[in-house]
Amino acid sequence: MAKSKLIVQKYGGSSVANAVRIEKVAQRIISCAKRGNRVVVVVSAMGDTTDDLISLARQINSHPSEREMDMLMSTGEQISCSLLAMAIDKRKVPAISFTGPQVGIITDTYHTQAKILKIETERIKKELTRGKIVIVAGFQGLSTALEITTLGRGGSDLSAVAMAVALGADLCEIYTDVEGIYTADPRIVKNARKLSYITFDEMLELASRGAQVMHTRAVEVAKKFNIPLSVRSSFSKKEGTIIMENPSLIEEPVVRGVALADNEAKITICNLPDRPGIAARMFKELACKNINIDMIVQNVSHKRNTDISFTVLKKDLAKTLKISRQIATKIGAGVVLCDETIAKVSVVGVGMRSHSGVAARCFSVLAKNKINIEMISTSEISISCVLKKSSGKKALKALHKAFNLGLEK
Amino acid sequence: MAKSKLIVQKYGGSSVANAVRIEKVAQRIISCAKRGNRVVVVVSAMGDTTDDLISLARQINSHPSEREMDMLMSTGEQISCSLLAMAIDKRKVPAISFTGPQVGIITDTYHTQAKILKIETERIKKELTRGKIVIVAGFQGLSTALEITTLGRGGSDLSAVAMAVALGADLCEIYTDVEGIYTADPRIVKNARKLSYITFDEMLELASRGAQVMHTRAVEVAKKFNIPLSVRSSFSKKEGTIIMENPSLIEEPVVRGVALADNEAKITICNLPDRPGIAARMFKELACKNINIDMIVQNVSHKRNTDISFTVLKKDLAKTLKISRQIATKIGAGVVLCDETIAKVSVVGVGMRSHSGVAARCFSVLAKNKINIEMISTSEISISCVLKKSSGKKALKALHKAFNLGLEK
Repeated sequence: MAKSKLIVQKYGGSSVANAVRIEKVAQRIISCAKRGNRVVVVVSAMGDTTDDLISLARQINSHPSEREMDMLMSTGEQISCSLLAMAIDKRKVPAISFTGPQVGIITDTYHTQAKILKIETERIKKELTRGKIVIVAGFQGLSTALEITTLGRGGSDLSAVAMAVALGADLCEIYTDVEGIYTADPRIVKNARKLSYITFDEMLELASRGAQVMHTRAVEVAKKFNIPLSVRSSFSKKEGTIIMENPSLIEEPVVRGVALADNEAKITICNLPDRPGIAARMFKELACKNINIDMIVQNVSHKRNTDISFTVLKKDLAKTLKISRQIATKIGAGVVLCDETIAKVSVVGVGMRSHSGVAARCFSVLAKNKINIEMISTSEISISCVLKKSSGKKALKALHKAFNLGLEK
Repeated sequence: MAKSKLIVQKYGGSSVANAVRIEKVAQRIISCAKRGNRVVVVVSAMGDTTDDLISLARQINSHPSEREMDMLMSTGEQISCSLLAMAIDKRKVPAISFTGPQVGIITDTYHTQAKILKIETERIKKELTRGKIVIVAGFQGLSTALEITTLGRGGSDLSAVAMAVALGADLCEIYTDVEGIYTADPRIVKNARKLSYITFDEMLELASRGAQVMHTRAVEVAKKFNIPLSVRSSFSKKEGTIIMENPSLIEEPVVRGVALADNEAKITICNLPDRPGIAARMFKELACKNINIDMIVQNVSHKRNTDISFTVLKKDLAKTLKISRQIATKIGAGVVLCDETIAKVSVVGVGMRSHSGVAARCFSVLAKNKINIEMISTSEISISCVLKKSSGKKALKALHKAFNLGLEK
């Protein structure tokens, strides 16, 4: 007899949003188990539970302590995981649910954005050996100070991937409300094509450039430990997209997909003294405040002064502007400008490593469409351009078409 | 400087039913702390949370496992305790919340009705030393098998009393939605009087005979460890009722209060063979099924056969009838009858120990009011009579008046 496979499945909030959906998910889990697999399930909070809890907290305290927020928010996944266990149990298949702390998901002590340090798998393995389906509350863990922590954005995906790593799972399936990873956002680009596979690196680039299906943290861990991820819909039987190491195909497409982000704002600090250490000082202070800088562009200097532009998430804009202006004053720079009406369009593909001319083609496609480029940033496998927000969708469609990514009509 | 007092306060579900009430409770806790006391707070789930969670579970599984129910239900108190900590924190008074398992409330393994075995107080004491108000989720604990458990009915009161015992608290205050313990249910008896104190034994008798303010389990523990309980309203500043050991007053009232219960049903097994061991067999089987028998009455035998009547909670009636009929058949007894239209009226007072004639007075009061008594049961400090349900309130009022318990008009 073939050794049974160990599969970690993760279901997002929309997949377990109500009793009916929880029952559907239970059926799917059971059918996976009935095919002879051992199954560990990681589950998010039901639908809007987390948002509801946050709004309840804000009614009471507009700046609640992060430690208490974790106490509060972790209840969301505890509810969904116990309900899911009940739904499986009803179908005469034994299941058991665990909270993150209970099952030994050990994190550091950074409340609301903790990092997983290790997962103690003993208890899960014991229950699997007893023939049970194990349901684990995602998004949460127990800190080294014995406090309940949550993992921040994308936390349940991360719980699932880390669980798959710790258990040495054969596969990690991420069930969500879309059918997989597309060449572009199908809500914008009508003939976007679902990819049957994508490499970890490409997924990381797409995710950090606006594709919202998977959070980068989970993909990073999957890449590090080489755990293939299957991203698929909990509402359909269709195969999704496998995220994995580059398989040795003879010919790779040069560009895998394109992405659009419009949640960033651009800040420009004018007339910065062009001395060593000025930029470092600037970005160190911002990093200390936990502000994530995305693109940074500095042009050649004129008359010992230079301009630096960079982008940050809009949610961090107010904080960033305040700090930037303080620093600008201290170091004798000029005005600090900001622009919220920007969009960032990106082209991603591992094939770029061996193909030149992709950047040139990008720029010429945008130029042909009379779209002005404000900032450019490139990595080994991606090219990103900041544009006026109003041109974002047009740019995305034009690039998608130019690189022949769509379904043929 | 006088040593600061350690006070355990417990707030019930109605006291923390919404954000506004949570803020009021926070103010009350803070004012207790500002008077120089160290304060540990035990809190129930907000308003109807527990009922909502139960109904959510039932949508998915009409017979969910008790272990998963505990996972689910324990979230209710986790939510309220973190919100309460946030509300206190907002007022610049340091507070920290803990779940039952987190703080070391160790129970046995009987899910949904676990018993507290011990409380590890180290973590609470550490936070108190740091000057924090400690908020603990009531109703829950961690079993010796490392599972989340809940304590069943009256569980949060029990958590509070056990906490007071473990910490060696000076006082345990139970905040609820009534102003204290009354000589009778003030919704029925208009001139019922709030008692300034009542003994543990009297409270136990009243609670097990229909007074719903305090659950017997919590009072039993308070009595065992001689922790005075103050029962009072979270909605008013008025003094409540102190439940304590009998203080040495020269003269005690003979009767402290009267109670009415209409949540029981009477079962009669006719023509039971009058042999030793028959009754034992009967009630042993019922005890095995966790059915709590209240009153038991057996009369003198006629022709080697006897009738046994007993009362059970209505919620257990169906199960009890089924078992009783099975046993009756096995042991050759006659028919098993049941009556759901009964009420039980009780007269309670420690003074009865030294006063005779209370029972006679009860019966004569009922007779004068043309109320027929169906069953009688007495303890050292109480007398209970089972009547037709329709006579219950009339009997309660008559007894309350006959023993001069009311406020003078």
